[in-house]
Amino acid sequence: MSTSVSGGLKKYSVSIIGASGYSGAELTRLLLRHPMVELQELYAFSQVGNHVSDLYPALGCNKVYKQYSGETGSDIYFLALPHGEALQLVPSLVQAGKMVIDLSGDFRLKNPNEHQEFYKQVKSPDAVMTYGMPELFRDTIVKTKAISNPGCYASSIILGVAPLFLGNDDGLKVRAINCTSTSGISGAGRSSKTELSFSEMSENVRAYKVGIHQHIPEIMQALGTSATDPSFDFSFTPMIGSLVRGIYSILNIQLEQPANRAELQGLYHRFYQQAPFVRVRDTMTEVKHVVHTNYCDVHIAGMTKNGSLTIVTALDNLLKGAAGQAIQNMNLMVGINEATGLL
Amino acid sequence: MSTSVSGGLKKYSVSIIGASGYSGAELTRLLLRHPMVELQELYAFSQVGNHVSDLYPALGCNKVYKQYSGETGSDIYFLALPHGEALQLVPSLVQAGKMVIDLSGDFRLKNPNEHQEFYKQVKSPDAVMTYGMPELFRDTIVKTKAISNPGCYASSIILGVAPLFLGNDDGLKVRAINCTSTSGISGAGRSSKTELSFSEMSENVRAYKVGIHQHIPEIMQALGTSATDPSFDFSFTPMIGSLVRGIYSILNIQLEQPANRAELQGLYHRFYQQAPFVRVRDTMTEVKHVVHTNYCDVHIAGMTKNGSLTIVTALDNLLKGAAGQAIQNMNLMVGINEATGLL
Amino acid sequence: MSTSVSGGLKKYSVSIIGASGYSGAELTRLLLRHPMVELQELYAFSQVGNHVSDLYPALGCNKVYKQYSGETGSDIYFLALPHGEALQLVPSLVQAGKMVIDLSGDFRLKNPNEHQEFYKQVKSPDAVMTYGMPELFRDTIVKTKAISNPGCYASSIILGVAPLFLGNDDGLKVRAINCTSTSGISGAGRSSKTELSFSEMSENVRAYKVGIHQHIPEIMQALGTSATDPSFDFSFTPMIGSLVRGIYSILNIQLEQPANRAELQGLYHRFYQQAPFVRVRDTMTEVKHVVHTNYCDVHIAGMTKNGSLTIVTALDNLLKGAAGQAIQNMNLMVGINEATGLL
Amino acid sequence: MSTSVSGGLKKYSVSIIGASGYSGAELTRLLLRHPMVELQELYAFSQVGNHVSDLYPALGCNKVYKQYSGETGSDIYFLALPHGEALQLVPSLVQAGKMVIDLSGDFRLKNPNEHQEFYKQVKSPDAVMTYGMPELFRDTIVKTKAISNPGCYASSIILGVAPLFLGNDDGLKVRAINCTSTSGISGAGRSSKTELSFSEMSENVRAYKVGIHQHIPEIMQALGTSATDPSFDFSFTPMIGSLVRGIYSILNIQLEQPANRAELQGLYHRFYQQAPFVRVRDTMTEVKHVVHTNYCDVHIAGMTKNGSLTIVTALDNLLKGAAGQAIQNMNLMVGINEATGLL
Repeated sequence: MSTSVSGGLKKYSVSIIGASGYSGAELTRLLLRHPMVELQELYAFSQVGNHVSDLYPALGCNKVYKQYSGETGSDIYFLALPHGEALQLVPSLVQAGKMVIDLSGDFRLKNPNEHQEFYKQVKSPDAVMTYGMPELFRDTIVKTKAISNPGCYASSIILGVAPLFLGNDDGLKVRAINCTSTSGISGAGRSSKTELSFSEMSENVRAYKVGIHQHIPEIMQALGTSATDPSFDFSFTPMIGSLVRGIYSILNIQLEQPANRAELQGLYHRFYQQAPFVRVRDTMTEVKHVVHTNYCDVHIAGMTKNGSLTIVTALDNLLKGAAGQAIQNMNLMVGINEATGLL
Repeated sequence: MSTSVSGGLKKYSVSIIGASGYSGAELTRLLLRHPMVELQELYAFSQVGNHVSDLYPALGCNKVYKQYSGETGSDIYFLALPHGEALQLVPSLVQAGKMVIDLSGDFRLKNPNEHQEFYKQVKSPDAVMTYGMPELFRDTIVKTKAISNPGCYASSIILGVAPLFLGNDDGLKVRAINCTSTSGISGAGRSSKTELSFSEMSENVRAYKVGIHQHIPEIMQALGTSATDPSFDFSFTPMIGSLVRGIYSILNIQLEQPANRAELQGLYHRFYQQAPFVRVRDTMTEVKHVVHTNYCDVHIAGMTKNGSLTIVTALDNLLKGAAGQAIQNMNLMVGINEATGLL
Repeated sequence: MSTSVSGGLKKYSVSIIGASGYSGAELTRLLLRHPMVELQELYAFSQVGNHVSDLYPALGCNKVYKQYSGETGSDIYFLALPHGEALQLVPSLVQAGKMVIDLSGDFRLKNPNEHQEFYKQVKSPDAVMTYGMPELFRDTIVKTKAISNPGCYASSIILGVAPLFLGNDDGLKVRAINCTSTSGISGAGRSSKTELSFSEMSENVRAYKVGIHQHIPEIMQALGTSATDPSFDFSFTPMIGSLVRGIYSILNIQLEQPANRAELQGLYHRFYQQAPFVRVRDTMTEVKHVVHTNYCDVHIAGMTKNGSLTIVTALDNLLKGAAGQAIQNMNLMVGINEATGLL
Repeated sequence: MSTSVSGGLKKYSVSIIGASGYSGAELTRLLLRHPMVELQELYAFSQVGNHVSDLYPALGCNKVYKQYSGETGSDIYFLALPHGEALQLVPSLVQAGKMVIDLSGDFRLKNPNEHQEFYKQVKSPDAVMTYGMPELFRDTIVKTKAISNPGCYASSIILGVAPLFLGNDDGLKVRAINCTSTSGISGAGRSSKTELSFSEMSENVRAYKVGIHQHIPEIMQALGTSATDPSFDFSFTPMIGSLVRGIYSILNIQLEQPANRAELQGLYHRFYQQAPFVRVRDTMTEVKHVVHTNYCDVHIAGMTKNGSLTIVTALDNLLKGAAGQAIQNMNLMVGINEATGLL
């Protein structure tokens, strides 16, 4: 691998395609400070020629955004593009032998019908990459060279219920999951929409895409079922609130058999024992606990008389829900400590 | 009734006990502008001797907060006190023949065991007043002289599901309701708690009292069942977000039989046909649509593949969730148009 | 005047041209509730055919936005248009004998050179209307039929210093005024600019147009001097902060001779004795004290060792800084109490 | 010096006294990640026995707050205590040969009368330490063992005007400076005051301590004059706005002779040539540009017709205004790169 060597440390040359959005900016910040990375090029279609220091002065970065025209000079490419735009770019990068981490939804869904239903785009059935959720698929990630990075809502929901599906030898069976997630507005990207203006969103809350959000099939797929023919009832209501960063998910879960809270707590602790970024907390979590970090906090908050279960998760949509998780995946792919550059 | 006469209009003399909290301030604002009201005294234990214009300059009110010592000189008394403090005051006001509207939870629950479980207070079984939700109990309210004003979360949830229980001749049967509500921080009152400081709550979201909030038995009672022995599974997760006013509730409802969306829409429209302050909306509602108004917006937002239903409601916790609804109740009690002074 | 009669009260027929912006929405809210007004048409170029209840559900208004094509059927017209667009409309409305209140900057400046310098538009020297600041020019306003409504920053600054210029028999002479004003972001209108998005402006502060804001000549003109040849040094730094509504101005004033604070306090109280909406306060004012009201609060906050003076003012940019002041002007023009519909 | 050795790198043992406030938490975050530091003890009087991970989960720190009882086991001590509490602690630490960086105001002022006037505390004339503003006093800092870290407002103002006083061979002379600064509410510390609650401060702005803030004598002293007998007119209005972090200062400066903007720009660039954390920017700065960084941005924004000058500065009150600058001082004191652990 064509890496640079600096101060005795072998460094990977890394570029970002789609570097001028909020996820791209967080990738820039993290990669600039990553001890094993030499940040090479920042490609950004709408900002070509502009200085990073003018768009994101806080980054303290003196690079200039460039036009991407098929370059393959780096070892690793992160893509942080609007949905649909990575579909063409990724295959040629993979073919050129590059490591690729795509933050869009283009390569997440195996089922092309679901992709079409939820993304309104046609794609071939083999346009799927390894789903980069380290806490569930670490063994596969360390062997792959192309990662589809999970969605932000999907991360906050999957991590909140995964132990019930994947870590569970006790015969727990899920009958229904109702999710309500509050997202920071940065999740909508660097936007000029009136409905996302400060005057409209300050002190506001607004649900959208109720039951039709594109992260629904992604969640179902990760949990081993499908949106088309689900093995349990699933509802999802995403909301944006008066915050820039963070996703806060309330997951109400109905089990076939009432479960014991202490046993569930044990199950979750065991499941995430090796996970440096998922914290099973005994007390209530909040957005403030995780924002500007790569942590996802999970708290088993309550049970109803009838045995339904409430789990609360919190993460930073731009970090564990995007750029941070992407770096975590890169670390695993190149064989270094999962947490490098993220603590 | 000892009312004043001004400009040909008979006016009711009204006083507020507990006038210096946020609900008290909204009552002050509304009553000062109410065409049938002469606002007489503002009682406030912690602010005795202070000018309203110093505590709430925006009210443009030149009164001084007084100590309440059993006065009964007004026709109507609003009580906006911390829970527990109205238990002693209300009976003597009622005995003195006064109209009373109590905004606390002291007189809401019929079941003294549930009151003790959720409010940690002993009360006698007859310490119950007419539950002042006009859209459900208008006929009783117009005949009563003592109202227990509903809780803010309770209002936002009850109004979102009431047609399924009370307006329903079609044999719909509810199996489960999962509620997640985001509240403005003013719901916690004028507070000096560190965890409600701006530095802690700006851009934050925090759930609390998951499954144990005192509005749970209130909701169940209004829907014709009980928290102790509920006829359907019920979960409730209250959250505070980065906003001062408003409650936004996501209600996920599982019916025994999948329902038809258009029919549900019809059911809701019929149920709230006469209600000036509940708006069944065809498009998504948001906090911004109702804040600083007495409206509660209700929107049937989505249905899952399995037939579960998502309903979204929005109201202003200090108005339809407190002071506004209290005035609405007063209007009904004195026999004038329900909406007087509220539009 | 062709007014309607309703319930014994003669009502004025009023229409708004440019009703769909934030100032237009506040005008709508106020006029709907004004006891002497029949709100007739809402004209809005970009929203023709849309329901007010969809754009501004909180208004509770069931009208539809219309295209303006020269109609003159109302008694009074408010114009709340982007700068430049009223220049053509106002003259024909005035010629048709209508009362006109224009909220733009088009008719504020007497000096066409200053208009061109600060608004980048050519206009003739006679395109000037009565400057509608009631506290300074009440006598002229009651006799006029065409009002140019003051700018929001200008209102907050002029009202803070006017007594030093216009109410002053004591020989006070101003040597310099430095103004720093924080505005709510609604001042920029209903906008889709990225730099005004929630993600960019939450927890942010940003100055702009330092020393070149178009309200500078307006302020100088109202104080009896000019931006071109000022009689004192004047600097103005406008900022937007993390708030939707409100303007908060810090006015640092250097006098030729040190003044006595008690005497200044007296001067201010006398000057605003008859003004229902300017409150000279003994304690610090804040945005929260005036938002959603038509008040402008003025507080003499401090003096330096060298005798320079700090005055703080607060108002709601959409009310006393726009729609509220416009209604106040209308009240004066039609000869009713200045405060009607505004308390 | 009793330092630890880890991975070949000599590390300094560092403890924080007063670690549980917001500045203490930022110190904790920075020191945990500092390559030359071994963070040893976190002392916090009000939180003794509590886990850092409960109070500040985002820090990812598994230490427990301890009681400070005179320990001197570390090489370096940071003190982040309320004003007055360091006065006794610092001398014994200095006497024990420790490096000390005090973030309070206790040791900033040379003049005990000014200390008493502005801090309401008696202190002896020799309770003064090196004023830790690296951009002005780097040469002294590298030789000292005890630093008094500058105040947050003071930093934002001094850095904005220092070149006019200290970098200036061109005969510029300042006649007056008017400062208006907006601070994030974290500047008031972890607080339980009602007036700093979210409900009071959201979408609010409030000035306070106009002309009497304790940073006034600190600023004057750093600029070579005194608050008691100033060589120019100085006014300062601090405000808190609706933001957690950041200070944004508008500095209006009157010079004896009008200055040329390009020359001033040159003067500022030269003055800060060697300063890694002060950025003289050609375009407007904003709080968002510096928050969560150690940068102080300075922008020469405008000049009036009469030649007065407007300079805008932005910094993060908890970083360049407190903890970040403190680390910068530590780096200089121990002889490593000033920016270590801060980029």
